[in-house]
Amino acid sequence: MSNAYETGRLNLPFTGICTFGKYPYVEDWSTIDADVAILGAPYDAGTQWRAGARQGPRGIREASTLFSFGHGGAYDHEDDITYLEQGKVRIVDIGDADIIHTDTLGSHAAIAAGVRAILAAGALPVVLGGDHSVNIPCIEAFEGAEPFHIVQLDAHLDFVDIRHGVTRGHGNPMRRAAEKPWVSGLTQLGIRNVSSTAKEGYEDARARGSDILSVRQVRSLGVEAVLERIPAGRVYLTIDIDGFDPSIAPGTGTPSHGGFTYYEGLELLDGIAKRCDVVGIDLVEVAPDHDHAGLTTTLAAQLLMNTIGRVLHHR
Amino acid sequence: MSNAYETGRLNLPFTGICTFGKYPYVEDWSTIDADVAILGAPYDAGTQWRAGARQGPRGIREASTLFSFGHGGAYDHEDDITYLEQGKVRIVDIGDADIIHTDTLGSHAAIAAGVRAILAAGALPVVLGGDHSVNIPCIEAFEGAEPFHIVQLDAHLDFVDIRHGVTRGHGNPMRRAAEKPWVSGLTQLGIRNVSSTAKEGYEDARARGSDILSVRQVRSLGVEAVLERIPAGRVYLTIDIDGFDPSIAPGTGTPSHGGFTYYEGLELLDGIAKRCDVVGIDLVEVAPDHDHAGLTTTLAAQLLMNTIGRVLHHR
Amino acid sequence: MSNAYETGRLNLPFTGICTFGKYPYVEDWSTIDADVAILGAPYDAGTQWRAGARQGPRGIREASTLFSFGHGGAYDHEDDITYLEQGKVRIVDIGDADIIHTDTLGSHAAIAAGVRAILAAGALPVVLGGDHSVNIPCIEAFEGAEPFHIVQLDAHLDFVDIRHGVTRGHGNPMRRAAEKPWVSGLTQLGIRNVSSTAKEGYEDARARGSDILSVRQVRSLGVEAVLERIPAGRVYLTIDIDGFDPSIAPGTGTPSHGGFTYYEGLELLDGIAKRCDVVGIDLVEVAPDHDHAGLTTTLAAQLLMNTIGRVLHHR
Amino acid sequence: MSNAYETGRLNLPFTGICTFGKYPYVEDWSTIDADVAILGAPYDAGTQWRAGARQGPRGIREASTLFSFGHGGAYDHEDDITYLEQGKVRIVDIGDADIIHTDTLGSHAAIAAGVRAILAAGALPVVLGGDHSVNIPCIEAFEGAEPFHIVQLDAHLDFVDIRHGVTRGHGNPMRRAAEKPWVSGLTQLGIRNVSSTAKEGYEDARARGSDILSVRQVRSLGVEAVLERIPAGRVYLTIDIDGFDPSIAPGTGTPSHGGFTYYEGLELLDGIAKRCDVVGIDLVEVAPDHDHAGLTTTLAAQLLMNTIGRVLHHR
Amino acid sequence: MSNAYETGRLNLPFTGICTFGKYPYVEDWSTIDADVAILGAPYDAGTQWRAGARQGPRGIREASTLFSFGHGGAYDHEDDITYLEQGKVRIVDIGDADIIHTDTLGSHAAIAAGVRAILAAGALPVVLGGDHSVNIPCIEAFEGAEPFHIVQLDAHLDFVDIRHGVTRGHGNPMRRAAEKPWVSGLTQLGIRNVSSTAKEGYEDARARGSDILSVRQVRSLGVEAVLERIPAGRVYLTIDIDGFDPSIAPGTGTPSHGGFTYYEGLELLDGIAKRCDVVGIDLVEVAPDHDHAGLTTTLAAQLLMNTIGRVLHHR
Amino acid sequence: MSNAYETGRLNLPFTGICTFGKYPYVEDWSTIDADVAILGAPYDAGTQWRAGARQGPRGIREASTLFSFGHGGAYDHEDDITYLEQGKVRIVDIGDADIIHTDTLGSHAAIAAGVRAILAAGALPVVLGGDHSVNIPCIEAFEGAEPFHIVQLDAHLDFVDIRHGVTRGHGNPMRRAAEKPWVSGLTQLGIRNVSSTAKEGYEDARARGSDILSVRQVRSLGVEAVLERIPAGRVYLTIDIDGFDPSIAPGTGTPSHGGFTYYEGLELLDGIAKRCDVVGIDLVEVAPDHDHAGLTTTLAAQLLMNTIGRVLHHR
Repeated sequence: MSNAYETGRLNLPFTGICTFGKYPYVEDWSTIDADVAILGAPYDAGTQWRAGARQGPRGIREASTLFSFGHGGAYDHEDDITYLEQGKVRIVDIGDADIIHTDTLGSHAAIAAGVRAILAAGALPVVLGGDHSVNIPCIEAFEGAEPFHIVQLDAHLDFVDIRHGVTRGHGNPMRRAAEKPWVSGLTQLGIRNVSSTAKEGYEDARARGSDILSVRQVRSLGVEAVLERIPAGRVYLTIDIDGFDPSIAPGTGTPSHGGFTYYEGLELLDGIAKRCDVVGIDLVEVAPDHDHAGLTTTLAAQLLMNTIGRVLHHR
Repeated sequence: MSNAYETGRLNLPFTGICTFGKYPYVEDWSTIDADVAILGAPYDAGTQWRAGARQGPRGIREASTLFSFGHGGAYDHEDDITYLEQGKVRIVDIGDADIIHTDTLGSHAAIAAGVRAILAAGALPVVLGGDHSVNIPCIEAFEGAEPFHIVQLDAHLDFVDIRHGVTRGHGNPMRRAAEKPWVSGLTQLGIRNVSSTAKEGYEDARARGSDILSVRQVRSLGVEAVLERIPAGRVYLTIDIDGFDPSIAPGTGTPSHGGFTYYEGLELLDGIAKRCDVVGIDLVEVAPDHDHAGLTTTLAAQLLMNTIGRVLHHR
Repeated sequence: MSNAYETGRLNLPFTGICTFGKYPYVEDWSTIDADVAILGAPYDAGTQWRAGARQGPRGIREASTLFSFGHGGAYDHEDDITYLEQGKVRIVDIGDADIIHTDTLGSHAAIAAGVRAILAAGALPVVLGGDHSVNIPCIEAFEGAEPFHIVQLDAHLDFVDIRHGVTRGHGNPMRRAAEKPWVSGLTQLGIRNVSSTAKEGYEDARARGSDILSVRQVRSLGVEAVLERIPAGRVYLTIDIDGFDPSIAPGTGTPSHGGFTYYEGLELLDGIAKRCDVVGIDLVEVAPDHDHAGLTTTLAAQLLMNTIGRVLHHR
Repeated sequence: MSNAYETGRLNLPFTGICTFGKYPYVEDWSTIDADVAILGAPYDAGTQWRAGARQGPRGIREASTLFSFGHGGAYDHEDDITYLEQGKVRIVDIGDADIIHTDTLGSHAAIAAGVRAILAAGALPVVLGGDHSVNIPCIEAFEGAEPFHIVQLDAHLDFVDIRHGVTRGHGNPMRRAAEKPWVSGLTQLGIRNVSSTAKEGYEDARARGSDILSVRQVRSLGVEAVLERIPAGRVYLTIDIDGFDPSIAPGTGTPSHGGFTYYEGLELLDGIAKRCDVVGIDLVEVAPDHDHAGLTTTLAAQLLMNTIGRVLHHR
Repeated sequence: MSNAYETGRLNLPFTGICTFGKYPYVEDWSTIDADVAILGAPYDAGTQWRAGARQGPRGIREASTLFSFGHGGAYDHEDDITYLEQGKVRIVDIGDADIIHTDTLGSHAAIAAGVRAILAAGALPVVLGGDHSVNIPCIEAFEGAEPFHIVQLDAHLDFVDIRHGVTRGHGNPMRRAAEKPWVSGLTQLGIRNVSSTAKEGYEDARARGSDILSVRQVRSLGVEAVLERIPAGRVYLTIDIDGFDPSIAPGTGTPSHGGFTYYEGLELLDGIAKRCDVVGIDLVEVAPDHDHAGLTTTLAAQLLMNTIGRVLHHR
Repeated sequence: MSNAYETGRLNLPFTGICTFGKYPYVEDWSTIDADVAILGAPYDAGTQWRAGARQGPRGIREASTLFSFGHGGAYDHEDDITYLEQGKVRIVDIGDADIIHTDTLGSHAAIAAGVRAILAAGALPVVLGGDHSVNIPCIEAFEGAEPFHIVQLDAHLDFVDIRHGVTRGHGNPMRRAAEKPWVSGLTQLGIRNVSSTAKEGYEDARARGSDILSVRQVRSLGVEAVLERIPAGRVYLTIDIDGFDPSIAPGTGTPSHGGFTYYEGLELLDGIAKRCDVVGIDLVEVAPDHDHAGLTTTLAAQLLMNTIGRVLHHR
């Protein structure tokens, strides 16, 4: 195992260009050759409360450099495993999808193009939002793929069909996903509080096979029991950072009190990495303008680093 | 059930004038015709550490609009109940009591006048502080009413009788309340840490019948057991936001580590709404200047929306 | 002259519901009866750098209450004039246009409807942005009106015709305006620095009759000489807050160093109020999330209060 | 000339206990033996907009340590003078007046006691506010002294007699001062904008002999001409930090655009130090909660250090 | 029991000079006569991510004044004990060690000198960091003392031997301590997440006798069981604030999600105070520039006040 | 002239990886082939007040992307010139020098190595600090080069020889530079206020040929006259952002009121670009942790973009 600091650089986290985890940048999307490819999707015109998720990819990349500092991998003393071992994992950052202000369809199309390029290269797409509407093109990019189940961590159900003509806002993605033939079902975790989808949305979701659990219900069942409700096999993870508690994820557009703790989230993600075949990940709604002390970007980076490491390790 | 977005407006939360929950504003206090009336009490000269609670009513109103966006009510999937159903609840915002800088008695009198106007209209007064001293005129406005019990959520006992001549600061309200013939007793929850009332204050409170429980004691007893210690019947709720943990309520004058989580508070309030006859509510010590990401104002609005909805539902 | 504090309330600025200047709220747009009507246009999906201008109307309204506190008018000792004399001016706030996330055309249509309602009532429309794209529907609402000249205060020329299909973003409004038969010409003041419109845009603007002056050019000519270049008669004012220096207007999406001071702006606006017939005003690009200490919202409110007062006084 | 760093300590500004300028703390007010004594007056219940000036003394003290780092004095290369030469000036910090929440008279009395103690010791009182109402006890403490003129730097006239019974709020101090037999007149500089005193206040002030100049009037006259309007002899300086531009003094309760630049203020203060006999100084309305990057506390400390240095040098 | 407010001053927490807890300042280190002496160690050039811990001592002192307000002691109603009883405990603040920028050895030497002065006076040293490297001179100052065990609360193992020549950075202190003959062993609590020490560091630590427990392992064992693993007798406490959860300790250089709650920390410290002979304390990595609402400085002050009170009470 | 948005991407400024101006990243320093090469020098242990300049390179890079958005160059309508024309200028970003915490000499050596690599490639080095001590290795890297004059923009003289053994802190660089045989002289502009170098430092600087001018002296002389005092020929520019006014450059370690405006700085830099042969540039002391609204990073990026553009245009 070689460390960066043995090869000429100490490479402290605050130095260097901010790609995700300081992994190599691949500008030409036709040349992706990696296990995992990171794509930014800085679109936030789908938000209904505070904007700012467009700065999410930059914020997460910046925070992720804290987790890059050169030990030849990420040793976890509780698991006694070195994840992301240098030389054994190939991760690249392919930059951001092109965003066109005032044009939702055009922006979503550009995001879908990025995800398709990653899939075409056989890599795992990890998309940094942007608001939750960017999940729509992510799922659309899988058209023609083998069916997969979606696991969502979120405060909100996001199951609105259409309202005032809006079908691709940040309240619609799970409804859009459920319509796709290549989406076999949904597990929606963390859903809580008023001000989310109306009752009809819940009924619609359940009718379409969704398994909806609040934070308290997850806590009461226990992580193991929740994991058992998730079908083994292909799973797509969509992580809305507001599924986590506002105390650790203040930098988001629509914070909702009573969310997951860090370890509740990590243990769910760890369990999924162990049991399922993760085919794609997006992490959305990080809005650095509303963050402080980098708590939210650090949380996002820490979750992604840990999840990617576990997904690759347990493959 | 009709939704705002079906009648011409999508009415996203960030649009429109900030009354509480975007409910109607009633400027003439002699014409209140409602189940619930919101009154702001932006007085903060009673504080002993950081000021800024005068901005509380504006901050809470602004945050409350997040919870207004037009689903014809607030559906809670855990309870399977739609609270605050449109057309079934009548809530109004009557603006703020007049505050006179440098004049505590005058400001308190104006607050009391507002509460009396609400009570005269037969509505439930919900007062937005301001510092905790605004509880003093709130309780005084009930003079002549049937006796009621007070449940306080707070980090601090606030049971100082008089110190350097001060009797109406934010450390005195519970002592003032306990003196009133129309206050039958107190349950004081969340009380913790040094730097609050001295030992004599605790002894005085207990001698006057107070039931004092720390956060850890509440946690150890369990919510149900705590609820059983509260007498059924008429209850007045006084919620000092610093009863909650600083991680979710940083925007307050005197934060104290080790406070309640959101669900601990909600379950206590939910239980009281079910078992008792809530006759008045104040929520105090929200200081938006010290808030970040709107965590504290969002918490206050979320608690109040949920409490008002439950009080009206369980009537 | 009667003051609020003589009629029962001291009415300190931090109390009360935040309509613009605490002027009356008119919810039914068919009943506007006023000299001036304020409309919020909280749309910000037209931005190309930082979002957040959707919070502009709320921020400006909040700051404007500082300028409301009840002296029966606003006495200016330098002019020896009491502007906005109570009982002599009729100003109303009609709330916000409905905004539909992901839908630029729909949102713009709602803004135009609001402006048309104000014009139909014979009142002066004063629109609070939102990003500069909201100027597009504002100008469109004047279709059929007598021609007018536009005076723009801005760091950026905003004269892009079309780019990647975008025609209604915040870089397009002046080009859109220049196309309208009812717009007779433009004076564009404060334009500076790289990173704005490309050279072709300047040539296009000049070809269409624009008078373009940088901050240094305005400073060098002097306010009087600049005012003389503006045609007397009907004028529409569009004020992008980033025309002002970032030191006093940090809370904006695209700050550009080297902008106007407060008095340079005020003297231009004062001169226009004296010489021209102001037919409409918008003030855009205030983004409170990026503000601090309320500098930008205070600037916007202070400019609008002073401009409205002068327009009404010099009529 | 000896420097701290030659006697064992480098004494970087960020080290050590925060007294003003790291000058000695004198706890027993009967033992003051100094040329200048600093007193904090952290009272802010006189404010009408944002609170927070109670943190002013602490904020100014903290910022002042930047100007303490041990060169045996403060060399000004433009004046070619070393001010505050070590061993030649005796400056002490006597801590804060006791403040009693909810009790304006009691708090003001404690401030007056502190100033009287300083005067009794023959030292120059320099009072750190707190809001501008703390000027009232400062002036009262001079009762029985030889008459003096007051020079005020401020955005607001602060000449309200009584409103809703309030006579000792932050809008009243100059009216209170003008009533005193030992105050011979006022020069009020920087006064500007609407939302300050009503027209009657200006007429009253002028009738009582005030010389009122706006920032633009000061700028137009030039510093020298303004200084000539100030009577030689005994002068008391009251500096409301909002006299300065919000771009350099954002941390204040009532910012008003269009204020003085740093050098305009410094040159006025320098001129007064040269021509007059300064008998007392207060600097008020610094509210660190609304500051950012320490701009306002640094400005206050920089002004005070420079003014004290010049007053002592030119004696 | 006498209270400050009975002897002439109400002494609200926001008044007065900020020594720790407003305890007396002892400038001459040869005259320390106390049970406990506080020393600031504002050195932060040992950090590898965000700087700013140099402001830690000032921030903690400022926050500590909240816990000073004069009840003759700190009554804890859960323990029914008055800690820090006035007249019974002698605590002093001796200011800060001299720091020399760019010179780590010089700065560390100055810190060690301060600790030696406290030890020579027979007082308990309580050192306010500064980054965790300041623990190195603290431990070195004990050279020649009876051996003691170290209990560390921290997110990071800090057991790096040498990297790129660095031996005295904030990743090295526990390794440096373990080398000392007068350090008998280490208990390292809260250690978690990737990005800390590499696997070899853990193996090295365990080989040298460290007992390493993550937050989840502490939680799973329970506080009592953890306390039993700590040897009775002499214990030195080193508290890295990032051992606590970022939600309550955001103001630190290297936040790591999943940390201790306030009461987990307090109960560990309380247990150690009861069972062990505490010979020294440092609390490090508080970086106020990254704090908000004072959460982190308040946490640090609240922990220290409670720990000092318990250590003195249980002696 | 081709624009990015004509070739497939709109490339809004908030998208993409943050290299300086989104120019290409060159990781291998032996392959630099460019007119200009950007190097980050994130070292800040030389600071004497607030730390945080280590985040300067990242902050400036992020802000610089605002100035990248694809018009094929930067058209300046005042100069009627398109600077930085696409295809005509070759600019690269070579990332950051390696920084070793606690090791000033090692960190400085790494910075010098980067500058030497740029010089060896025949490119213009543009170094992003870091604190002003990073100028020391920048100048040292020119050893052996033809002599050049240094123009410094700064609030502080930075001419300390040695103090407490410190020779390479942020107060020493100009003294270190003046010692070098390859530095022919210094022009030091913007120097002001107390708390900088002591009188001896000024005398030493003048004795070594420095031309020292304060902001007011520059303003009084006029930009042209100042430019005439600078020798034509080879010039190295060192820009301490605190030379600018704190109102536009709050995000710095040691703000000093009374600094340059944006255009004063730009006109000096423009004049130097026209008259001199610029051989190197550093811009230091940007500390994003103390910034707000990105004012300081935007200022730094705007100055550098404009200076680089002018230097290349006028060659």
